[in-house]
Amino acid sequence: MNTLCDIKAVAFDADDTLWDNETYFLEVERGMCDILSPYGDAQTISDSLFKVEMANMEDYGYGAMAFTLSLVENAIKVSHGAIPASDIAKIMELGRSLLRLEGTPLEGVEDTLRKLKATGRYKLVVFTKGELLTQENKLKRSGLQKYFDDVVIVSDKREQQYTSLCRQLGVEPEEFLMVGNSLKSDVLPALNIGAWAVHIPYEVMWQHEVIDDFEHHRMFQLTQFAELTSLLGVEK
Amino acid sequence: MNTLCDIKAVAFDADDTLWDNETYFLEVERGMCDILSPYGDAQTISDSLFKVEMANMEDYGYGAMAFTLSLVENAIKVSHGAIPASDIAKIMELGRSLLRLEGTPLEGVEDTLRKLKATGRYKLVVFTKGELLTQENKLKRSGLQKYFDDVVIVSDKREQQYTSLCRQLGVEPEEFLMVGNSLKSDVLPALNIGAWAVHIPYEVMWQHEVIDDFEHHRMFQLTQFAELTSLLGVEK
Repeated sequence: MNTLCDIKAVAFDADDTLWDNETYFLEVERGMCDILSPYGDAQTISDSLFKVEMANMEDYGYGAMAFTLSLVENAIKVSHGAIPASDIAKIMELGRSLLRLEGTPLEGVEDTLRKLKATGRYKLVVFTKGELLTQENKLKRSGLQKYFDDVVIVSDKREQQYTSLCRQLGVEPEEFLMVGNSLKSDVLPALNIGAWAVHIPYEVMWQHEVIDDFEHHRMFQLTQFAELTSLLGVEK
Repeated sequence: MNTLCDIKAVAFDADDTLWDNETYFLEVERGMCDILSPYGDAQTISDSLFKVEMANMEDYGYGAMAFTLSLVENAIKVSHGAIPASDIAKIMELGRSLLRLEGTPLEGVEDTLRKLKATGRYKLVVFTKGELLTQENKLKRSGLQKYFDDVVIVSDKREQQYTSLCRQLGVEPEEFLMVGNSLKSDVLPALNIGAWAVHIPYEVMWQHEVIDDFEHHRMFQLTQFAELTSLLGVEK
């Protein structure tokens, strides 16, 4: 029977786990709805955006550039081609702001990473999906890079990517713990390959990531990032 | 004194090394110039695009989505906001075509990879810069994935990334050979960390990648991909 004492590597999701992200996306979406208000109400425009994003997923994947391209496409679509180029430029600038987020660590994150690192017990890794440069730049700006042994950015986080990550880190799944806010991307695939998972819900969640709650003997629910130290038996 | 006999891992650039890429970008650029012809001549518009791309490099990096965002920005810029949304939609579709390239292997590529793999002597790796999903999708469509032990996609290919790659592959730089069409991204940084490099020029080169020719005792110039077998002493 494996226990948390066997953990040799801890991987952290980035957006909405280490730093705030989704609230900025929502802010940009509201800005877009304002600009597009001559062509429809906010709900209709947001619903249309989500459909555009889903249709583009196979080509664009997840991330701020993908989102910006979908914003522009949706603006042309809902305005039936009537939107002036100057408004498209405004929407592109909104999208670009997402490439320049500070990545300010959420409460308790930096202190907890410092304590985990100080134990010397774990390989600490960032494991995030999205766009390479966007995520690398955000990590640099966050000031958190120094706590991590590795940074792995993938186009999607499914079982296959978790298996590859364990192999790359040289650990067995039962020695691996994933920490994140998404049951769908962080928790479920990790559990499915036999690894451990910590779920720390964030205040907002993109509808694409929402799945039903569930329980599992290798999953722990925390409300605060700082509770990781107690869970792992690390000196507070 | 190390020789080519010491090589344990061979990494291949993707775009314009394994398959054609730049000619499609040029085709899209010509299409954009046609759409924007009411606002200026092709040379002026292309020059403006290059400036926009360079200014966006820090935020967007390399790739087809980055290129598409720059195309749209440049269209609004050179038309002084006069371009209709329907033309922006056309430009976005041109950009999207670059996300759906077949990745048809260049002459001699597949046969050579098969022979190198058959020796069992080398770890074979794709090492490319660009956008994660764009490059992954192209590799899948190329049919070449089965020849590679690993696929590593990075936001830029500089010495630091080559050092990390060697570490990840578990080889020393003098046991590592990089094959690619760009002196700037494929050859020079590999040589600088003490690795080997094969330069196979492609018929067209993006101006951002152009540097002066040079010679080096650990670099080989080939005109055909298939010449790799002779260079490495592999049965033809």
